[in-house]
Amino acid sequence: MMKKILQCGLKCGVFAGVALAAAQGQTAKDAHQQVANLVEANSANWKQVSKQIWDFAELGYHENKSSALLQAQLKDAGFSIKSGVADEPTAFVASYGEGKPVIVILGEFDALPGLSQKAVPERAPVTQGGAGHGCGHNLLGSGAALAAVAVKQYMDANHVKGTLRYYGTPAEEGGSGKVYMVREGLFKDVDVVLHWHPADKNSVIDGGALAVTSAKFTFHGVAAHASMAPDRGRSALDAVMLMGNGIEFMREHVPSNTRMHYIISKGGVAPNVVPDLAQIDLMARSPSNTTLQDIWKRILDVSKGAALMTGTTVEVTDIGSDADIIGNDALAQVAQKNLEEVGGYTMSEEEQKFARDLQKTLGLDTLPSLELTKEIEPFHRPDPNAPSASTDVGDVSWVVPTIGFSTATFVPGVAAHTWQAAASAGTSIGQDGMVVASKALALTTVDLFSNPQLREAAKADFAKELAGKTYRTSIPEGQKPLIDYRGK
Amino acid sequence: MMKKILQCGLKCGVFAGVALAAAQGQTAKDAHQQVANLVEANSANWKQVSKQIWDFAELGYHENKSSALLQAQLKDAGFSIKSGVADEPTAFVASYGEGKPVIVILGEFDALPGLSQKAVPERAPVTQGGAGHGCGHNLLGSGAALAAVAVKQYMDANHVKGTLRYYGTPAEEGGSGKVYMVREGLFKDVDVVLHWHPADKNSVIDGGALAVTSAKFTFHGVAAHASMAPDRGRSALDAVMLMGNGIEFMREHVPSNTRMHYIISKGGVAPNVVPDLAQIDLMARSPSNTTLQDIWKRILDVSKGAALMTGTTVEVTDIGSDADIIGNDALAQVAQKNLEEVGGYTMSEEEQKFARDLQKTLGLDTLPSLELTKEIEPFHRPDPNAPSASTDVGDVSWVVPTIGFSTATFVPGVAAHTWQAAASAGTSIGQDGMVVASKALALTTVDLFSNPQLREAAKADFAKELAGKTYRTSIPEGQKPLIDYRGK
Amino acid sequence: MMKKILQCGLKCGVFAGVALAAAQGQTAKDAHQQVANLVEANSANWKQVSKQIWDFAELGYHENKSSALLQAQLKDAGFSIKSGVADEPTAFVASYGEGKPVIVILGEFDALPGLSQKAVPERAPVTQGGAGHGCGHNLLGSGAALAAVAVKQYMDANHVKGTLRYYGTPAEEGGSGKVYMVREGLFKDVDVVLHWHPADKNSVIDGGALAVTSAKFTFHGVAAHASMAPDRGRSALDAVMLMGNGIEFMREHVPSNTRMHYIISKGGVAPNVVPDLAQIDLMARSPSNTTLQDIWKRILDVSKGAALMTGTTVEVTDIGSDADIIGNDALAQVAQKNLEEVGGYTMSEEEQKFARDLQKTLGLDTLPSLELTKEIEPFHRPDPNAPSASTDVGDVSWVVPTIGFSTATFVPGVAAHTWQAAASAGTSIGQDGMVVASKALALTTVDLFSNPQLREAAKADFAKELAGKTYRTSIPEGQKPLIDYRGK
Amino acid sequence: MMKKILQCGLKCGVFAGVALAAAQGQTAKDAHQQVANLVEANSANWKQVSKQIWDFAELGYHENKSSALLQAQLKDAGFSIKSGVADEPTAFVASYGEGKPVIVILGEFDALPGLSQKAVPERAPVTQGGAGHGCGHNLLGSGAALAAVAVKQYMDANHVKGTLRYYGTPAEEGGSGKVYMVREGLFKDVDVVLHWHPADKNSVIDGGALAVTSAKFTFHGVAAHASMAPDRGRSALDAVMLMGNGIEFMREHVPSNTRMHYIISKGGVAPNVVPDLAQIDLMARSPSNTTLQDIWKRILDVSKGAALMTGTTVEVTDIGSDADIIGNDALAQVAQKNLEEVGGYTMSEEEQKFARDLQKTLGLDTLPSLELTKEIEPFHRPDPNAPSASTDVGDVSWVVPTIGFSTATFVPGVAAHTWQAAASAGTSIGQDGMVVASKALALTTVDLFSNPQLREAAKADFAKELAGKTYRTSIPEGQKPLIDYRGK
Repeated sequence: MMKKILQCGLKCGVFAGVALAAAQGQTAKDAHQQVANLVEANSANWKQVSKQIWDFAELGYHENKSSALLQAQLKDAGFSIKSGVADEPTAFVASYGEGKPVIVILGEFDALPGLSQKAVPERAPVTQGGAGHGCGHNLLGSGAALAAVAVKQYMDANHVKGTLRYYGTPAEEGGSGKVYMVREGLFKDVDVVLHWHPADKNSVIDGGALAVTSAKFTFHGVAAHASMAPDRGRSALDAVMLMGNGIEFMREHVPSNTRMHYIISKGGVAPNVVPDLAQIDLMARSPSNTTLQDIWKRILDVSKGAALMTGTTVEVTDIGSDADIIGNDALAQVAQKNLEEVGGYTMSEEEQKFARDLQKTLGLDTLPSLELTKEIEPFHRPDPNAPSASTDVGDVSWVVPTIGFSTATFVPGVAAHTWQAAASAGTSIGQDGMVVASKALALTTVDLFSNPQLREAAKADFAKELAGKTYRTSIPEGQKPLIDYRGK
Repeated sequence: MMKKILQCGLKCGVFAGVALAAAQGQTAKDAHQQVANLVEANSANWKQVSKQIWDFAELGYHENKSSALLQAQLKDAGFSIKSGVADEPTAFVASYGEGKPVIVILGEFDALPGLSQKAVPERAPVTQGGAGHGCGHNLLGSGAALAAVAVKQYMDANHVKGTLRYYGTPAEEGGSGKVYMVREGLFKDVDVVLHWHPADKNSVIDGGALAVTSAKFTFHGVAAHASMAPDRGRSALDAVMLMGNGIEFMREHVPSNTRMHYIISKGGVAPNVVPDLAQIDLMARSPSNTTLQDIWKRILDVSKGAALMTGTTVEVTDIGSDADIIGNDALAQVAQKNLEEVGGYTMSEEEQKFARDLQKTLGLDTLPSLELTKEIEPFHRPDPNAPSASTDVGDVSWVVPTIGFSTATFVPGVAAHTWQAAASAGTSIGQDGMVVASKALALTTVDLFSNPQLREAAKADFAKELAGKTYRTSIPEGQKPLIDYRGK
Repeated sequence: MMKKILQCGLKCGVFAGVALAAAQGQTAKDAHQQVANLVEANSANWKQVSKQIWDFAELGYHENKSSALLQAQLKDAGFSIKSGVADEPTAFVASYGEGKPVIVILGEFDALPGLSQKAVPERAPVTQGGAGHGCGHNLLGSGAALAAVAVKQYMDANHVKGTLRYYGTPAEEGGSGKVYMVREGLFKDVDVVLHWHPADKNSVIDGGALAVTSAKFTFHGVAAHASMAPDRGRSALDAVMLMGNGIEFMREHVPSNTRMHYIISKGGVAPNVVPDLAQIDLMARSPSNTTLQDIWKRILDVSKGAALMTGTTVEVTDIGSDADIIGNDALAQVAQKNLEEVGGYTMSEEEQKFARDLQKTLGLDTLPSLELTKEIEPFHRPDPNAPSASTDVGDVSWVVPTIGFSTATFVPGVAAHTWQAAASAGTSIGQDGMVVASKALALTTVDLFSNPQLREAAKADFAKELAGKTYRTSIPEGQKPLIDYRGK
Repeated sequence: MMKKILQCGLKCGVFAGVALAAAQGQTAKDAHQQVANLVEANSANWKQVSKQIWDFAELGYHENKSSALLQAQLKDAGFSIKSGVADEPTAFVASYGEGKPVIVILGEFDALPGLSQKAVPERAPVTQGGAGHGCGHNLLGSGAALAAVAVKQYMDANHVKGTLRYYGTPAEEGGSGKVYMVREGLFKDVDVVLHWHPADKNSVIDGGALAVTSAKFTFHGVAAHASMAPDRGRSALDAVMLMGNGIEFMREHVPSNTRMHYIISKGGVAPNVVPDLAQIDLMARSPSNTTLQDIWKRILDVSKGAALMTGTTVEVTDIGSDADIIGNDALAQVAQKNLEEVGGYTMSEEEQKFARDLQKTLGLDTLPSLELTKEIEPFHRPDPNAPSASTDVGDVSWVVPTIGFSTATFVPGVAAHTWQAAASAGTSIGQDGMVVASKALALTTVDLFSNPQLREAAKADFAKELAGKTYRTSIPEGQKPLIDYRGK
């Protein structure tokens, strides 16, 4: 398949045209046009890559085939590769060029458990209980790479100075992959980071996302026969129950839009034995990473209180943590313009039929228009009180000026982490949306290379946003990436 | 010892009648001697059977090989077999003789999960995580059958009138096998029931055991994304937590020696999803089945209250229930005398070595003497405030006069439901203890056949004990035996 | 400032209509000037009245002297009085004129327990533990009456048709006084309602406030000696504890900005007696009265669940309930203009000294400028996620188009329900702020009389806001006003 | 009756010694007769005293008139008085004689709140809500003094060597008065302590009573407006709720017959304020003071855990603590014989009528026979699993050999701490029962003075009972008697 694509590259003459058009003293408009064309020219190959990763559907830290495919493709495209960075076997850095400025595009490629799904508009797992790309990361990793390759070709053609990198970042879904990469110092020399994420509409991501910290709280007590000698037992389940109660009583006394949610992952083995082991898996979220650190300390106190109350001990392990995203209005302004310049896409009739069939499964009272894929949302800062999810892009945004895009890869009305999202991500709808993202990323990256004032403005805005704040993660210093965080 | 008993016989009221009646064709002494010899003569075979069942180590309702072996052996010995009674595939009735009186000996043969263990004095599973005879039911079923076969041969030899039955009763360990047999009416024409149970000392079982009722409480709520829309969720786990809380608040307000213990068997799947399913497995116990019925109603109210509080629904399934044992002093007096007549057994030197090695693993401050296997405990009614376990023999004792024995099949100091008990049950120690039980059962059965006054006295005592009480079980009428109560 | 408004008048749509309509006999400008002058002319007297009510400091439904004073003053000014309406001894209707339109100005005059305070900038109660005007209702009732008297004089002078009423509304602080007045039908023929509230800044109140429902949940159990026979007791305190727990578990599953808070007002009498009586006083709030009705039903279920769990019964009494305020943008636009036309006030040097001394007691890091009393907040709809309080004006706004003002009667930085607010309300600062409110109310009332289009626009906006919504109160139909809701 | 006892004396070991020793100057029979006559002779006066104290009905530590009256009477009778001992204004030591041995008789005289009651067989308080002698301590203090006075006269008459003391011990009902007297060292030189208590039957008190510890747990948090800023509050009520929950979860894991019971004495002031103060009043009991110390430590941990969980602090104050009573079989044997020698009393017809009327108010299914007042219960050690109350006599019994009596001062069927008990204690029924106690105390005291072997046997038994045990109280060393423990 690679052969065919390269052959096409040579015949289709696109590359030659790009080189010619890329004159040193060209206008920004021309530059945008040139790199957008390069995205278009490379898109067929990367749509194909996105479909392969969709088929692999590998879980966090075990994205072996997906990571290898992306690495091979980027190497073929002229990037040098460093793999297995930050103690993460599937993380990698693909690099092109040298010196300043350093611009990074982030790519993710992990799937979600239980969301295995064929590319059809009804629930139909490929593998019962298997994993699936319910968050569209097959598109994310491929689309980001498509942008990187196009920009690289543009840099080549126009002798642009500086370093372009693609970071292959594993285990976004609960593994906090990027946090270890931040800790490793991989963002120290970076000027600006770009990212994107699949969604059901086109918009700029300027901040938002909830900071999240998660852990397993394991209580250890003393087993005893629950009928013969309950007084000799110290129940780890009692501790779990009281920790749960403690969390509930905390809810009134945390800021609005805080989230604390948990399951009891180990609740005893047999009802006639006082449990000596019980476990609660808890996540806490807040619009502010700083606020979350305080809340997390209080949650730890709740767990210690529960242990003290029950004569048990508590162990906190498997800590995951993502920060909220620090917005950057200087970058956002350019990003918004570029996204509007790129525009959305129009579904084919066949795609519309698929979309309508899929929408029927959503149980919504009013269905969003399919026109949404064509439109760009007006710019607005995210409402801190709005419901939201979390991402480890957050941590990156605390150490480098960062900007991102959402594009309409899911049928309008489809939420992330659903089989409908997985289905969308395996179709041309997802791939069309992906190309919109790739172009928006590419245009903005080119702007960043060509425009030192923009980089300065981004830096200034970054400093302003973080004035008086310190980046912290709840992941303990010594903790290695939790390769088997989803169980072996 | 016999001498002493005969002397006593004159003073001791009821037993005087027994002695006189037994002397119709022969003296009671001769009868006892004869049947005791028959037990001895058959013992080698049944020790072997006990070892085979120990090897099978089959869980409740799945004792296919164990039940088949016992049936085959009893058929060979001249019993007619009816298998699969009371909707229980492994339950059976082995019958000999006809007409009144009808005397039943109970046999159990189910193993316990996780207690797989070789017959060695250190923790060594045959199969990691496998089942094992930690309650010695391999001995129980075989020893009861040994008694039945000896009595049958005695009846043959002495032309004794009446019906002798052996009931193969599955799933004593949590499956309430006998309760369904009671419900089926299998005890309707029975005059007296005899049973025994492995222990670490020799004594008569005259009442005791805690009535128990158990069930799974499954709550159904509404799932929702715990970060995006927790207000749309109705948490089944919240209901489980509140049911747990409710049970804890009940503890102060139930009679002393009530037991309520539970685990959380399903506590949610992923911490970022409001659980729509959660489950608590609960057992409640009381020295009185009548009191327990009241407590159980209150527990059901707690579960309904938890559902009401959380906007969820609750389903109560997999209900198991054993009554407490109704004592019978008329039978107990004879049983005590017979057990004293039989006497205990003396360990060989090799057995003593094994016993001492095993005792070292018990972590006890003071080790009970190995002489305990030789001794018979003085008779006493059980203390209702003493810690105790439960058995489905209880339900039988509410519908027929019932008496039982414990014999020293476990190394002194070893508790039931431990790997040490499983190890003991696979050795000649267990088998020696079993033969003590078989003899005590056989002597008492012979007394019951030969002595109508004893049967009358048993009936009168039964009526007195149950005056004003009604037998009830919490198992719902339509519920079939829970063949897969331990999961498939 | 008037000039600016008239200039604006031409551009501002609705106000243009107002201006034209007001110009029947005179220009709107003249009308405003005339009535503002009338406010000024009457202000000395009503400042005095406000101080007397401040001295009375009477609690809800017991505002006998305050209500009598206001009635006497309004009667003197030419209003006819109907007192003791809606089963509330201190409620009254003061009426002037006849026929349509009917415009109502609301007045409150109840104090708060524990906030007795002298008009000095340090904590100094007049009566230790006594009541005080910590919410400035002495100003509220007087300022509203001042506006009514001025408008009445204006109507007289200009032969304005229609009915002007002042509603004396008791027990706003937790007594839901106006809800009973709504129920009585006192607002049935009313076209528009105006109100105001003391604050530390000048702004229009267009919606906002949290709907609230409150009640006492009294559990009845069975007493028993807690040491001798706890099993015979059914603890009402257990029910209270479990109801509390149930509320805590609910918190995760209600919409953001819901509030549920409670105290335990009766928690048992002696620790050695199982409590047969226990009580929880609970309030629930939500930005939406409709949402709150659902939440309240769930809270009732929690209480029933707690009773079911504990074998107790629950009684729900002393129900109070205020709805959220339904905004009216048509009225708000005019109100904002009028408030801007009136402008704020400037503190004297002496007042500034008092204000600065008082601010020192607030423990704030940054102190708000004293210039705030001069400024008018730009118009904005309230954020439903912002923290807020509750008011029974809400219920009125569900049945009649309603608009209100806040004015700077408290020293900037001072919150309601503090001794600092009580102190402010007893000084010329409070009185100056009151006159601002009186003028804004008077101007808007005059506009409403003179401008039928404005009344129509208000009616249309009202219909739009309530489309698909139904007014409901949680106060049961048969419940009379809780005259002694604060205890006897 | 003496005859029977002497016959027994030959078989009964210790008592043989007692009998012989008592016969030094006179026969034991004569001595007993003599002192019993002295009790009889003094009884009219002390019945009168008991009635006066019944009228006073003073609460613990405030028994000013009652204590003064007893002191005056004992002084008149020839005792020297030291009052206000152990920092307790109403405690006193009345002493007669000198040197060894030292025998102490304990007297109590505090009433109970809310049990004011006339001496009539229907509920009729003297003072609504007032205190009353629902535990019969008016009889207790007077009857003990009557015994002391009679023994003193006997000693005078017979030149008995040694010291006789009466300890006036206040605040038995929850004030732990005697614990402070123990701490003060007032029992250091004492050989034997005697006591008695009103009841509805006649028996020896040889051990029993539950050890108890009680305290107020006050939590301090941070107040905040519950609607405007609940996140800034740290709720002391949450801490109370979680402490309660923690206690409930502990119940399963404490030995049988442990008691833990509590009320919430402060549960917040207004539901719209996050409570910064909340309080739980808790009592814990156990048949063993040693076990209770462990449980108390765990309860303290529960309170600390609750504080940790909620960001609050906890203060433990007002600690009361009584130990269980250490039995003394050597003394009990003699006490039993003496009580049998004294015998009960027979009610007059009028008394029987009163008794029957009172019994009708008890709501009992079967009424105990009025003959019970004539009978003496056979001796038995108390069942540790039986329900029981607590007394500060317990602490005395841990430091000196102690023995006591119950006599039938309450109408049979009447429980302590009821209005029926208060009524009984004000009639001749109570006074007749008191005289039985006085005689039993007097006989035993005389035996103790005359019989050194009995004192030695008591000492030996005391040592045996406490082998391996250490006396501890949970009352902190620096804590003074809580004079206002019932509130001011």
